[in-house]
Amino acid sequence: MTRTINFNAGPAALPLPALERAREELLDLAGSGLSVMEHSHRGKEYEAVHHEAGALMRELLGVGDDYDILFLQGGASMQFAQVPMSFLSGGRRADYVVTGVWGEKAVAEARVVALQYGEKAHQAVTTRTGEGKEATYVRTPTPAELACIEPGAAYVHFTSNETIHGVEYAVEPGEDFPSFGQAPLVCDMSSDFMWRKIDVSRFSFIYAGAQKNIGPSGVTVVIARHSFIEEGRKDIPKIFQYRTHAENQSLYNTPPTFGIYLIRNVLSWAKSIGGLGAIERNNREKGRLLYGAIDAHAGFFRCPVVKTSRSLMNVVFRLPSEALEDKFVSEAEKRHMVGLKGHRSVGGIRVSTYNAVSLEWVSTLVDFMNDFAKKNG
Amino acid sequence: MTRTINFNAGPAALPLPALERAREELLDLAGSGLSVMEHSHRGKEYEAVHHEAGALMRELLGVGDDYDILFLQGGASMQFAQVPMSFLSGGRRADYVVTGVWGEKAVAEARVVALQYGEKAHQAVTTRTGEGKEATYVRTPTPAELACIEPGAAYVHFTSNETIHGVEYAVEPGEDFPSFGQAPLVCDMSSDFMWRKIDVSRFSFIYAGAQKNIGPSGVTVVIARHSFIEEGRKDIPKIFQYRTHAENQSLYNTPPTFGIYLIRNVLSWAKSIGGLGAIERNNREKGRLLYGAIDAHAGFFRCPVVKTSRSLMNVVFRLPSEALEDKFVSEAEKRHMVGLKGHRSVGGIRVSTYNAVSLEWVSTLVDFMNDFAKKNG
Repeated sequence: MTRTINFNAGPAALPLPALERAREELLDLAGSGLSVMEHSHRGKEYEAVHHEAGALMRELLGVGDDYDILFLQGGASMQFAQVPMSFLSGGRRADYVVTGVWGEKAVAEARVVALQYGEKAHQAVTTRTGEGKEATYVRTPTPAELACIEPGAAYVHFTSNETIHGVEYAVEPGEDFPSFGQAPLVCDMSSDFMWRKIDVSRFSFIYAGAQKNIGPSGVTVVIARHSFIEEGRKDIPKIFQYRTHAENQSLYNTPPTFGIYLIRNVLSWAKSIGGLGAIERNNREKGRLLYGAIDAHAGFFRCPVVKTSRSLMNVVFRLPSEALEDKFVSEAEKRHMVGLKGHRSVGGIRVSTYNAVSLEWVSTLVDFMNDFAKKNG
Repeated sequence: MTRTINFNAGPAALPLPALERAREELLDLAGSGLSVMEHSHRGKEYEAVHHEAGALMRELLGVGDDYDILFLQGGASMQFAQVPMSFLSGGRRADYVVTGVWGEKAVAEARVVALQYGEKAHQAVTTRTGEGKEATYVRTPTPAELACIEPGAAYVHFTSNETIHGVEYAVEPGEDFPSFGQAPLVCDMSSDFMWRKIDVSRFSFIYAGAQKNIGPSGVTVVIARHSFIEEGRKDIPKIFQYRTHAENQSLYNTPPTFGIYLIRNVLSWAKSIGGLGAIERNNREKGRLLYGAIDAHAGFFRCPVVKTSRSLMNVVFRLPSEALEDKFVSEAEKRHMVGLKGHRSVGGIRVSTYNAVSLEWVSTLVDFMNDFAKKNG
């Protein structure tokens, strides 16, 4: 069986060893004679998997003991509502820094919650540029723009990587996230979670859908400072209070057991190949190759994103015409490469290069890009 | 490999053919060279699976075109909050009919939402009996009790099967659900969903976690009258409005693709063995065998549930002592039968006999029960 080269934006490529392990164990987890899906979430077999997944995440990412790691459901889109439901209170604003469509969606849901509560949520900074249909995002904010955020917010929220526009924060080697001021920092890290080590201690709350770098869809990871969780509202339904899940180690109600099992397999693979250090080196090399090919054919390929914000996870670029873009996608498909079509809202080409996308796959694509540019340029 | 005999209460046994198909296709869905987990939820390969799962459910259960079938996340526990968030409005009450712990949890979350909204949710009928630690549930309400529900509620909510207490509605062959009055009827059908055909047209809203009869944990099914969904509040976050998911055929945000894929496999198996008619016959025979064994040793086994409310999904019973109950569970385990320990809150024995639990497995257990009663009675 030939594996198709998968550049999907999420759900996305998963490491072959993690999938093979799942296939091997599918009818029989750890000699139990049952599939992981058939085990009680209160039984010792599943609990071992559940806690191993959390422990591997803590170890690989370097998460301190003062943080809870939660496995929830509903995707980042549910967090857009659940975060303000918990943390908007006491007449304080929530400030949103918007660098793309996902940030827009986050602030829109926060505004609905704010209206219900009689509180306020607003877009404190946006890098949106252009008018109407031409409006787009091509960069993260400057330190000067971020310095204008007024103090006193309940939290400041940003999106570390915008999947559709290919705009990512802190992409240079060793570069840290900019300062967002003194308010508790909340980040939607869905599409660049665990592609490298970060300083978790700068954040009060991180959330991420699993379906990019660490697993299948259907699991949302939350990493939050325990004291921040404790500050959350208590007058909302129990299921929406993060403390409920923290107190029950994500076993308050039935978790998505198979998804968490697969995260375990993926993180176990990540550790086996050298952890996030090795994964970051690999991701940087993939980015170097892809942006190198784009810039080498600057008259043919054009990346709209400013260099210091170019995403290492979603490399977006345009060709001279939509017809050529269609041809690019269809010729790539003939070479068993899929997932290259840009999001329907922006068009163009998008190459998603999450952790499980190999350097070899990217090299194959780059060879094709060079060849395609020569033949059609 | 020997399959363990699985009486877990959920996550529970899954049909072997559905799991084998998943194993067979795990690295390659429909010749695509990708796992179902690696496909975009916007791609044709996954969309075919997604819509097949919905179509099979509609066909097997006989769901009319005026109903939407949704695949959501968060489990029934999230629906406990999401239902009142959508449907409590206009100064109308929500009435809850409580026959066990899950009904209690549902009304508790509804009360929190009601308080936020300045509306009212209350327990209109309960069959709770006994005081303090001895309090329990052993039956569904009588028609006379249900007749006392006052008209004018926004909706009436009940739990068709209480997993922990083994109390189920309408268990006689051909018996329909009782009348709950004229208000829109909402049902938590998590633990007895699709074990037989029902008259869906009596309900405005049905919800069910998948992890009992139809799939793994991590998917929540909602079947709701389209016009009822349309009446839901619009001043709540978009992600919590059922219309959002109805309008987008459960593809508003990334769905739990693997879970829905597995539901497709399970329902495809259900159809292949003769649909819900065949499944109901099988389930009734399993119940006849189990309750028959309990009643045949009435001095040794004791089912606390009144006969007309005895669950066909969760058969609960006690032995003369807790020591004998422990011995029963551990000797059964030696015979490769697991999941027999009653819920920690009530103790005793619980045999969950969802659709994938075979008649052969139940016969093996019944032989063991007869033998155990003779040796220890």
